[in-house]
Amino acid sequence: MKEFFNVTDLQQVLGYAAEFPRAGTEKIPLTDALGRVLAQDIVSDINLPDFTRATMDGYAVRAASVFGASEANPAYLTVKGTVRMGESPEFSIAPGECARISTGGMLPPGSDSVVMIEHSQVLDTALIEVYRSLAPGQHVIEAGEDIRKGERILFKGQGIRPQESGLLAAMGKERVEVYKKPVIAIVSTGDEVIPVSESPGPGQIRDINTYTLSDLVREAGAIPISFGIIRDNYDMLLKTCREALARSDMILVSGGSSVGVRDFTVEVIAALPDSGILVHGISISPGKPTILAKVGNKAFWGLPGHAVSAMVVFSVVVKPFVTHICGMDNRQKVFNIPARLSRNVSSSQGRTDYIRVKLVEKEGEFWAEPVLGKSGLIHTMVKSDGLIAIGLNTEGLDKGSEVSVIPF
Amino acid sequence: MKEFFNVTDLQQVLGYAAEFPRAGTEKIPLTDALGRVLAQDIVSDINLPDFTRATMDGYAVRAASVFGASEANPAYLTVKGTVRMGESPEFSIAPGECARISTGGMLPPGSDSVVMIEHSQVLDTALIEVYRSLAPGQHVIEAGEDIRKGERILFKGQGIRPQESGLLAAMGKERVEVYKKPVIAIVSTGDEVIPVSESPGPGQIRDINTYTLSDLVREAGAIPISFGIIRDNYDMLLKTCREALARSDMILVSGGSSVGVRDFTVEVIAALPDSGILVHGISISPGKPTILAKVGNKAFWGLPGHAVSAMVVFSVVVKPFVTHICGMDNRQKVFNIPARLSRNVSSSQGRTDYIRVKLVEKEGEFWAEPVLGKSGLIHTMVKSDGLIAIGLNTEGLDKGSEVSVIPF
Repeated sequence: MKEFFNVTDLQQVLGYAAEFPRAGTEKIPLTDALGRVLAQDIVSDINLPDFTRATMDGYAVRAASVFGASEANPAYLTVKGTVRMGESPEFSIAPGECARISTGGMLPPGSDSVVMIEHSQVLDTALIEVYRSLAPGQHVIEAGEDIRKGERILFKGQGIRPQESGLLAAMGKERVEVYKKPVIAIVSTGDEVIPVSESPGPGQIRDINTYTLSDLVREAGAIPISFGIIRDNYDMLLKTCREALARSDMILVSGGSSVGVRDFTVEVIAALPDSGILVHGISISPGKPTILAKVGNKAFWGLPGHAVSAMVVFSVVVKPFVTHICGMDNRQKVFNIPARLSRNVSSSQGRTDYIRVKLVEKEGEFWAEPVLGKSGLIHTMVKSDGLIAIGLNTEGLDKGSEVSVIPF
Repeated sequence: MKEFFNVTDLQQVLGYAAEFPRAGTEKIPLTDALGRVLAQDIVSDINLPDFTRATMDGYAVRAASVFGASEANPAYLTVKGTVRMGESPEFSIAPGECARISTGGMLPPGSDSVVMIEHSQVLDTALIEVYRSLAPGQHVIEAGEDIRKGERILFKGQGIRPQESGLLAAMGKERVEVYKKPVIAIVSTGDEVIPVSESPGPGQIRDINTYTLSDLVREAGAIPISFGIIRDNYDMLLKTCREALARSDMILVSGGSSVGVRDFTVEVIAALPDSGILVHGISISPGKPTILAKVGNKAFWGLPGHAVSAMVVFSVVVKPFVTHICGMDNRQKVFNIPARLSRNVSSSQGRTDYIRVKLVEKEGEFWAEPVLGKSGLIHTMVKSDGLIAIGLNTEGLDKGSEVSVIPF
């Protein structure tokens, strides 16, 4: 018995994500939209702004009226009136005229630019002098300069950051159509695993994976629902998985990295209706004994029991499935952090090794320092800032190599 | 009138953060702790694990029993029994003996390592042969190897990520003492600003800042509370700010970037009890006309009205104050993304310019492409992935310069 199963290449595993349907959609208030994913393209039904606005406090003028003005040779302008904020000025500006205007004010007809107040001097109530030339359009935002009516400004599958909220507000979207947050069921297994509320006896250990996986699910934009700790018992696991399937969009069963329990997981999957195993083993380390099945149209994962392995598999393999069913477009950018490796790291050919690293800044550059330790040691994750991947076909990386750190 | 106010250097402004008290503390369930900040050091009261555990499925042995074993020259071991998960084995292992064990199982007395099942062969129910040598401690996690009893494992002021949750679970912390989320009041001002629910008439524009600032506050770990849109009216602004002060830990008044309204904000601050202006103008662009006052022990900010300026000032100046009162230790790491500038960018000496950039990956390297556009244009923020700073004493940066992108 040299090998338990045939491993699947990571890229091939990730390709299965597209087989799972996205969550449904719902309309929610814009004030709750941060971090959600748009379920529709947004096309602007207005020009933004809808009028030419001042971007400085000063005087609305025709640029031609102050052409060549300087300290030595100021231009003199007649003050026609004051633009009231939020109102349409009832006068227009002719050559040689100007109007007092504040930032955000609407330019009167006939004006095309704004003299900054700092570049002018009041001579009397109806006369100013100006010391600088202006270009037409200077210190204003033209109508439609931010957004043109009819423009597609946001796309289906785009995540909402503060600036997207701001743009949706400008469009008058009090409510937005987003994908529902999928519900992800989390099941911890193992006769040795006890609830956090209990004190471990000999041979026992408290449940870690329910907490780490729930938080990773939250960070990925979904809702975790814990089904507690299930003993290594086929009937109990089957019963729990049936219930979890009925109440969730995806199932994560952690533990069962021992042969017997892996067998239970496989048997449970086989007993569920309309089920099939897609992946039984992935060519990554840690995380090789990972199972992916399709049950109905839901993903069912068997994750390793070691705390670090479960977190790595989630970050590298499961998360893209979660963000996919959350509706996230794969055009959405993810930024890993470029760094240099602080020491030589060896790796096995034929699998992708994920190494925990701490990021240290030296002379304006990030160095990735490997955090060594077995994949059962949760403190190594606490000391780490991210992961680097060492590819399938390399025996390791030399000190100083450029690496890309997946932050966590 | 060449200058309105004396600007303060950014580093000096940030130095004021320490003057504001941190939020109070509360005990919350561990399941709600993601993203919160620990309000106490955590010292382990247990060894983790509390016993020596197998990290592989196989046989618990004394390493000395399989010394020199190979395919050609296997070691023969008597199977003494099976370790039951979550239980203390009731037998011990002598030289030449072994016990079946699963990942996570407790090593029996007398054993010090685990033979992987792949490196063994069952000969009959009570005899196996082993093909590989082992070192003592191989394929096990020793008692206390993850965490030693008495070790300080997490510190006051540390943010909780999934792995910190996991470690807290292992420690049996069902509830954790964290800092309360501070409440940040948000007030939009401007006669031209209308609610998102209304259609803008001539000269009017919908409120953007309430939405962008609320989301930025949420991302920083605090709770936003909106006080709506206040017209440019001293009495109304004073009344609203009094109410906001009573109900929050910090106030953000946006808008009022025009002279008159800035004056209102200054007058309102002066009218509030125990108040003093700390900063009136910061040497950054955009965002120069920013006001910071201390009212009682709370920070009161006057932010620019332009959507982009308000976001930049929040990200660069206000956010460190928010994370400070959230209890975040300044040892907490923040990772900007190293990149190269895609084109020359000019800048003014005597101020720090913040340039919006889009990150584009080319040949494994990030390039920061400046997103040009006036600071009133919200679509430029939607197109951007972050900001770069061009320092006080430089006239600009050349194409290819190394820059550090503040992601948003």
